[in-house]
Amino acid sequence: MAGDFFDDRELRDPEERERDLLAALPGWVAAAIADAPGYAKLYADIAPAAVTGREGLARLPVLRKSELPAIQADAAPFGGLALKPPGDASRIFASPGPIFEAEAKRHDHWRTARALYATGFRAGDVVHNCFSYHLTPAGAMFESGAHTVGCAVIPAGVGNTEMQAQVIERVRPRGYVGTPDFLKTILEKADALGLDNGSIGLAHVSGGPYLPALRSFYEGRGITVFQSYGIADLGLIAYETPAREGLVVEEDAIVEIVRPGTGDPVPEGEVGEVVVTAWNNTYPLIRLATGDLSAVLPGASPCGRTNMRVKGWMGRADQTTKVKGMFVTPAQIAAVAGRHPAIGRARLVVASEDGQDSMVLRVEAAAPEDGLAAAIAETLQAVTKLRGTVELVAPGTLPNDGKVIDDTRSYA
Amino acid sequence: MAGDFFDDRELRDPEERERDLLAALPGWVAAAIADAPGYAKLYADIAPAAVTGREGLARLPVLRKSELPAIQADAAPFGGLALKPPGDASRIFASPGPIFEAEAKRHDHWRTARALYATGFRAGDVVHNCFSYHLTPAGAMFESGAHTVGCAVIPAGVGNTEMQAQVIERVRPRGYVGTPDFLKTILEKADALGLDNGSIGLAHVSGGPYLPALRSFYEGRGITVFQSYGIADLGLIAYETPAREGLVVEEDAIVEIVRPGTGDPVPEGEVGEVVVTAWNNTYPLIRLATGDLSAVLPGASPCGRTNMRVKGWMGRADQTTKVKGMFVTPAQIAAVAGRHPAIGRARLVVASEDGQDSMVLRVEAAAPEDGLAAAIAETLQAVTKLRGTVELVAPGTLPNDGKVIDDTRSYA
Repeated sequence: MAGDFFDDRELRDPEERERDLLAALPGWVAAAIADAPGYAKLYADIAPAAVTGREGLARLPVLRKSELPAIQADAAPFGGLALKPPGDASRIFASPGPIFEAEAKRHDHWRTARALYATGFRAGDVVHNCFSYHLTPAGAMFESGAHTVGCAVIPAGVGNTEMQAQVIERVRPRGYVGTPDFLKTILEKADALGLDNGSIGLAHVSGGPYLPALRSFYEGRGITVFQSYGIADLGLIAYETPAREGLVVEEDAIVEIVRPGTGDPVPEGEVGEVVVTAWNNTYPLIRLATGDLSAVLPGASPCGRTNMRVKGWMGRADQTTKVKGMFVTPAQIAAVAGRHPAIGRARLVVASEDGQDSMVLRVEAAAPEDGLAAAIAETLQAVTKLRGTVELVAPGTLPNDGKVIDDTRSYA
Repeated sequence: MAGDFFDDRELRDPEERERDLLAALPGWVAAAIADAPGYAKLYADIAPAAVTGREGLARLPVLRKSELPAIQADAAPFGGLALKPPGDASRIFASPGPIFEAEAKRHDHWRTARALYATGFRAGDVVHNCFSYHLTPAGAMFESGAHTVGCAVIPAGVGNTEMQAQVIERVRPRGYVGTPDFLKTILEKADALGLDNGSIGLAHVSGGPYLPALRSFYEGRGITVFQSYGIADLGLIAYETPAREGLVVEEDAIVEIVRPGTGDPVPEGEVGEVVVTAWNNTYPLIRLATGDLSAVLPGASPCGRTNMRVKGWMGRADQTTKVKGMFVTPAQIAAVAGRHPAIGRARLVVASEDGQDSMVLRVEAAAPEDGLAAAIAETLQAVTKLRGTVELVAPGTLPNDGKVIDDTRSYA
């Protein structure tokens, strides 16, 4: 087992990890309020000392990634969410949106070393890094992790497929880091040009779906591939291990799965939106609602790592749609449900009948009182300004796919 | 004066610097021979202990940058010139050629911090870095220097001009680092889009000629611009200072100016090929003949820095041409001159007469013996397999432009 793990923290008693992670919360919130006007505004009603445990965390308002472009445009560059001036960062990135990200002056800010280690990279390996280094942070993320592991990095970047294949032949890197599909593109180019790219035996992929056809391709070549899930704003969140059962959460990330449109954690196993808290002293993100869907995978990983596991990326949580020309949002559906304590989960099914939009709100209720459906329909209309029917169903009836708004209209 | 200099080393007594720099030579040569088979072959006849002072250095064979692609192709990836395996590097780059470069695991491997400091960058500044990070090292070179100074870096890279202008408006970097022309492109795009890029008050440019029209453009915008000279293989070599008199040589680079085609230093002030020695424990380059022309600028810089100064880039030293279908190289002309001790400088003038190629070898000779011209002509034919006439001229007659082969044929 020695050498299988990046450090002992991966093997901690889960309760010890939980205690260590959450103990810092009140201090983080206090620092954010003190030094970052954006957090001071967001947490105007929050007493930092009360932010204890998962329950305290869950009472903090979420910060929606989808709203970061507007928040940052109001107070450039970081929306008042940074604790230090831009010049105190190590690097500053700009992702499409635009959304700006700051990297703190610290080793492996984006926490990719652990995941690269789990993939099999070791000190002295050469890593061919095909994430872009320009404006967006993925290249720097995996480079700093590879350096932390002790690897040499070829900063290959994107494009230039022929040059990439030539460089691999000459330098003979042990592994590839990049999007799932680009390695295949390089290897096929190498084949076409008669270049030997056989040194690549290992790959860590992220930033896009790792589809079965790609898996088969790499398996056919004898290349061991592991994937991870992360976002530009705060880096790596969870990573695949040799157990090949879901993705193990990074030691320094606090992951919650919440009902889309809310900040309310769902029961273990239920599909919801990934909300992540990752601290640093420069640009910390507390309860960032990623817009991505996933679910907790119950139990512990057979690989020995004791941290929480999540399933991979399961789609986008932002299900905002338009009905009869009006926006309907997951937050509105959550608001409707919130006014009726008897409701469990709720799911708005949007359809088209004879060219007319229609809405049915399906709600789980264990022991519905008389008139509940009518009362909910009234609330639905008050919140959305749209008329819809309400259908009461037994708990457990609605599918566990994270969908709060199910738009069944065909746009073909 | 305090704060004007990156460190006290810039103000050292020149003799002290020379002694410190050169004292390491025998150890470097011994280590290169011991650990790098490429150097062991190149220095087969060299006793490391004898490599003392500038004279000892000048007796080492040069390593021609123009020959690196072939040398590295023979023994991938670094031509046997590296002291450690590729996996012990920090980063590995591939420049057009292809020529591969290794970055050692150390701070500011490429020595750009001093030059950025002389430009005016200080800790806490945000630097917009428009050199490419992908495959070639310039982006990493200036990023590591900016980090060493204590600046935050926007890894902007090349292209995406509109996005660059947007990022500058939002993040408000104090300065730009990149090629001389690209900042103008960005600023003009910002103007066209109505974006405020006025935060840019400082720029450090390299990697291409900094032409008068560009100077005027930046001066008109109130942007202070300094330039530097460096190469992908071993980083920054010399940099402009507020004195604006030539480029001051980097403290950890040993610069020689040699007669093109040889390894022989020219007298101070004479134009010749730039040869650089820059040590590190991973991929040191000893007497790398850059293929670039420059000249020592006599005297000391009024800015207070005491190191040797060079003029900027003065053209390419590789003047190899074809005469009557046969290659003629500067090394051949040097060989001809070497066989006749009475010759000072020599310059082969290639012309076309009635559609026929012709060669005249002009040689400086102080007190020519009878028959010298005929003897040289014979040697010229023996070395080049081509017939040419020889013209004896007084010392100081030939222009000081570093040209050993002057090809006057018109190809228009």
